[in-house]
Amino acid sequence: MSTIDALQWRYATKKMNGEKVSQDKVDQIIAAARLAPTSSGLQPFKVIVVTNPELKAKIQEVAYGQTQITDSSHLLIFAAWDKYTEERIRSVFARTNAERGLPESATADYLQRLLGIFGAQTEEQNFQHAARQAYIAFGVAITEAALLKVDATPMEGFETDKLDALLGLRERGLRSVTLLPLGYRDEAGDWLVNLKKVRTPLEDFVIRID
Amino acid sequence: MSTIDALQWRYATKKMNGEKVSQDKVDQIIAAARLAPTSSGLQPFKVIVVTNPELKAKIQEVAYGQTQITDSSHLLIFAAWDKYTEERIRSVFARTNAERGLPESATADYLQRLLGIFGAQTEEQNFQHAARQAYIAFGVAITEAALLKVDATPMEGFETDKLDALLGLRERGLRSVTLLPLGYRDEAGDWLVNLKKVRTPLEDFVIRID
Repeated sequence: MSTIDALQWRYATKKMNGEKVSQDKVDQIIAAARLAPTSSGLQPFKVIVVTNPELKAKIQEVAYGQTQITDSSHLLIFAAWDKYTEERIRSVFARTNAERGLPESATADYLQRLLGIFGAQTEEQNFQHAARQAYIAFGVAITEAALLKVDATPMEGFETDKLDALLGLRERGLRSVTLLPLGYRDEAGDWLVNLKKVRTPLEDFVIRID
Repeated sequence: MSTIDALQWRYATKKMNGEKVSQDKVDQIIAAARLAPTSSGLQPFKVIVVTNPELKAKIQEVAYGQTQITDSSHLLIFAAWDKYTEERIRSVFARTNAERGLPESATADYLQRLLGIFGAQTEEQNFQHAARQAYIAFGVAITEAALLKVDATPMEGFETDKLDALLGLRERGLRSVTLLPLGYRDEAGDWLVNLKKVRTPLEDFVIRID
């Protein structure tokens, strides 16, 4: 299936049937998210996987009762670094250089510039930057799920502070950004499945400036 | 090629060879971005396509001289709505309902709630939200380019205000968010192409909470 066909097939599933997604497919979706590009290769986010029904029920309570959370097979939570610290950034550069067999000096100038840029911004600005990187991976994961014919519902509608508290994310230096329940559509119970997919007309979506 | 293989193959190309990407492939990359999911289906961004060499040279000047901009075949610019206005949001809902053959009343409550949410936020908060939606499509477009074996360099490093002024984006109610030059790698001239791709180890990237 082409990406275009997969993206046409996918939709923000409103009702899932509880069927389990194979571990192999979940692994591929996570692998795709992990390979997504990020600013300076920092990957300033993590993917949290929840399958426990009781925990999903508690998450649903801070996500306006959306049933896909409990009817999903796996709930992915994209959570970004709450702040950029020198330690976090240095550790990414150290690992990258080590794996590439390069000395630390290979990236020393670049690293200093990067520390300067993030150091000049507020913690909140840096979190917003980290969150944007998580969104790239979110887009990649959504695409991969569709290619694997796994349904997924991209969600921003939840109480981030309450979810962070429920999962202890702040203690891990993370803040939740988006949710992605994975599962399979319940066609009979889903009001959206048969509605036409509507997008901005191509001629309005694209601007050619030359 | 699987998505995983494609994402392993791709990298932030540092040197492009000037070869032209076929219109068919560019169209598929844009089509994928257009199909990306967005919050409430608003698609609060556009993709700008630049191929003119003189204009690319001017853009390069506000993008720290990055050579991929001039050596690319097509430069895509993801630009988000500068603000959420009632008119913009109503227009998306009107089009969606019209294409689905639904009366406006079908989404009236949802629309009111949405207008309330965005109305309670600052213009800057709403722009940040729009920008995040553009990042989802950015991730989708990067994935599709890799699957088509088209090289692409995701870029945040440019002077957004200067680029907006150069392209007249603010007059169109847009603010530039990211760049994506498309083209083909110049293996001989690219210092990054043979370096190992490094990612956060899987066991650190994923957190299982159950």
